[in-house]
Amino acid sequence: MNNIKLDPLFNQLTSLLGNRFSVAEAVRQHHGEEMTHYDVCLPDAVAFPLTTEEVSQIVTLCNHYEIPVIPYGAGTALEGNFLAVGGGISMDFSRMDNVVAIHGEDLDCTVEAGVTREQLNLAVRDLGLFFPIDPGANATLGGMAATRASGTNAVRYGTMRDNVLSLKAVMADGTIITTSSRTKKSSAGYDLTRLLVGSEGTLAVITEVTVKLYGMPEAMSSAVCPFNSLEGAIKTVVDTIQMGIPIARIELIDTLLVEIINRFSDFNYPVEPTLFMEFHGSETSVKEQAEMVEEIAMLHGGHAFQWATRPEDRTKLWKARHEAFMYLRAAFPGKDFLVTDVCVPISRLAECIHETHQDIKDINITAPMVGHVGDGNFHLTIPYDKNNPDDVTMIERLNTRLVERAIKMGGTCTGEHGIGLGKKKFMAQEHGAALNYMKTIKVALDPKNILNPHKIFDL
Amino acid sequence: MNNIKLDPLFNQLTSLLGNRFSVAEAVRQHHGEEMTHYDVCLPDAVAFPLTTEEVSQIVTLCNHYEIPVIPYGAGTALEGNFLAVGGGISMDFSRMDNVVAIHGEDLDCTVEAGVTREQLNLAVRDLGLFFPIDPGANATLGGMAATRASGTNAVRYGTMRDNVLSLKAVMADGTIITTSSRTKKSSAGYDLTRLLVGSEGTLAVITEVTVKLYGMPEAMSSAVCPFNSLEGAIKTVVDTIQMGIPIARIELIDTLLVEIINRFSDFNYPVEPTLFMEFHGSETSVKEQAEMVEEIAMLHGGHAFQWATRPEDRTKLWKARHEAFMYLRAAFPGKDFLVTDVCVPISRLAECIHETHQDIKDINITAPMVGHVGDGNFHLTIPYDKNNPDDVTMIERLNTRLVERAIKMGGTCTGEHGIGLGKKKFMAQEHGAALNYMKTIKVALDPKNILNPHKIFDL
Repeated sequence: MNNIKLDPLFNQLTSLLGNRFSVAEAVRQHHGEEMTHYDVCLPDAVAFPLTTEEVSQIVTLCNHYEIPVIPYGAGTALEGNFLAVGGGISMDFSRMDNVVAIHGEDLDCTVEAGVTREQLNLAVRDLGLFFPIDPGANATLGGMAATRASGTNAVRYGTMRDNVLSLKAVMADGTIITTSSRTKKSSAGYDLTRLLVGSEGTLAVITEVTVKLYGMPEAMSSAVCPFNSLEGAIKTVVDTIQMGIPIARIELIDTLLVEIINRFSDFNYPVEPTLFMEFHGSETSVKEQAEMVEEIAMLHGGHAFQWATRPEDRTKLWKARHEAFMYLRAAFPGKDFLVTDVCVPISRLAECIHETHQDIKDINITAPMVGHVGDGNFHLTIPYDKNNPDDVTMIERLNTRLVERAIKMGGTCTGEHGIGLGKKKFMAQEHGAALNYMKTIKVALDPKNILNPHKIFDL
Repeated sequence: MNNIKLDPLFNQLTSLLGNRFSVAEAVRQHHGEEMTHYDVCLPDAVAFPLTTEEVSQIVTLCNHYEIPVIPYGAGTALEGNFLAVGGGISMDFSRMDNVVAIHGEDLDCTVEAGVTREQLNLAVRDLGLFFPIDPGANATLGGMAATRASGTNAVRYGTMRDNVLSLKAVMADGTIITTSSRTKKSSAGYDLTRLLVGSEGTLAVITEVTVKLYGMPEAMSSAVCPFNSLEGAIKTVVDTIQMGIPIARIELIDTLLVEIINRFSDFNYPVEPTLFMEFHGSETSVKEQAEMVEEIAMLHGGHAFQWATRPEDRTKLWKARHEAFMYLRAAFPGKDFLVTDVCVPISRLAECIHETHQDIKDINITAPMVGHVGDGNFHLTIPYDKNNPDDVTMIERLNTRLVERAIKMGGTCTGEHGIGLGKKKFMAQEHGAALNYMKTIKVALDPKNILNPHKIFDL
């Protein structure tokens, strides 16, 4: 990075932020490392703003000196989304963690971008409300909005796209905007809210997020069901969705991952393809939903449908699901991990998973699969050695085949991880001519290309 | 309009489209008239494309000659959205009315922009599916996407924002794009789908719309309930929403409109503020929902809760609701009508309606109110004489006070009609600095300002 620009910028940021501006190696290291296979990539410095106004001042300065600004939430991204590949300032939102306003009557809530989903849920719990979007990791709301996150509950409650009502954001020139009112609907002009949701910090820096809340369901119950075959489990999911059963979660865990969960938690499930499920509603409707799904499962080789109605059993179940990646790291010590996800129309899900499993078998690797299959979305987590060129070639080929298969089936190269660095190469294939207009918008809104540059696409 | 440009353009469009290009006065008249108070405003010509490729050719030519293109659906817009105020070509989608693909298993469907919602519902009915968005008028899917329409079912199923999965569209330079895959979710780049939804034809011309479908509910029932007071009716709505009861429709009809509905249909309701409701679900859940709402209504002065479970009674009920505007025109022959809508957070709905009623009382006019109140959205339809300057002043003042009140309460100047011409003056007040970035996007995507110019905002 050019010191002629950096020196005066750093001086001004130091006088603005004091010790909330850091060039310390350890701090930069912390902001330059992902938990997946991406190489470490340090920002030149890290800023810790306290307010939207400070964010605006920082962005204004960076825009003036043409130095990149990369928003940083909880650091749980998976596709290199926050790595400072062009250098610049990592903007850490951990100190912007205030709940700004809870409108219980309106079922919405405004939080600063650094508030995590667990913190948000704690803040609204006593009102009998909850925020359903759950990507597994305890991500920040700002980061979740930026990557259009979703996760296990999306099959019923939608993704961040559906649940963000409004954003406060700082544009590349430092201007603070509010993208819309927090009403349930509006036809007043362009949908800037959803333009920024999923833009991964490349169009604006999100500083506040207003999201929908939901009344805690009167009843919740979870179930686990192993299947004789992967096909049977997938057919159960497809039938459940097609029948319009409002299931809250329906997660597919393949045999390999069941074995790993058994090994690292205190579960002892049959080592077979398994569905983890959750039902929300009134007592009557939860019972009705669950009975219908059990019936469907039995038709497709499901057996030993196990209930977990006690909150502690439910929590234990979903904890195991969420910690699967941690278990995987423990199961393959010293390995790097490629974590990838695709999403297809549900009518193609069985075929897509089947062909992918065949690929995995052909190259004889370990690649556990887990899926938010109610949405047609599934993940592979592949341990490998990134210093072994053969491994790298093999993994890249597998990922490319997976993504191209999904796109050919009318799907997308990522259901919920975002493009970051890792999926840039598939953007043209997925979007065709539309990609040019994404670039047009980027250039118009960030003419100096300072906002998280080199992400989503190259200009 | 400049003949030096028009003559060669018209020659080329005639040779492209033959008799599907018309400059006939009667045809232009039909495309230059809204059903509300806007002055007649004729386009220079009307084109009737058959394919997306033709739309692309027309737009390419218009862009070359810098002549406006204004998409035209069913002509049911209410805010001057399709009036050719800068001259140009009205592009009528009535002959692009093919259902392109129905993916019953995926619960989605692709239609050309000229397909109407009734036509769509007919096409999917035999599969046991339906498309819930219902703005009252039998609008086209292209028009509904362009204005981010919603209507009576939005309280449960959301608006066009939530239900459009993907669009095919022609950009200002004539390029054909597809905005995204039709998967239920994706994190792959900017959300062009939702950028175009609600852009009123100012950023691109929508030629195909892919929407979500839903399984026809096992059970549906409707109910009508009159209340002692408007406040009681509103409180019932607010409590219903806050309790998370998944009601499908909950519409408020004020006393004045009940009287008019009684006069022009064969209903004979008590002349009191009234809720029209509909419940969707399983037999059990419909019953459960309805009993809960009845209980809430009784607490707030509701009485004579009447059921309509037979399909023909339900249809009759919603027909009366949808034809209310027609009845109003019959009740006030020779009058012009200002039709306006606002939307506020539901916690402010009672206050907003109360103050608005007070305004109406103060100036002693007739202004029936109807509302999709479950979303905080309500409408006034005000008969007046637009040739009477006093009437005009009074109506404009009432509308301005209504909108400013809504915005001050955290609301929006339009819940579902769009900005068109009529609400442009409120855009700055509602959006502040964000408005400039909408303009930036418009200029970037349509540098010659040919796509429905002078709508939403002036440049």
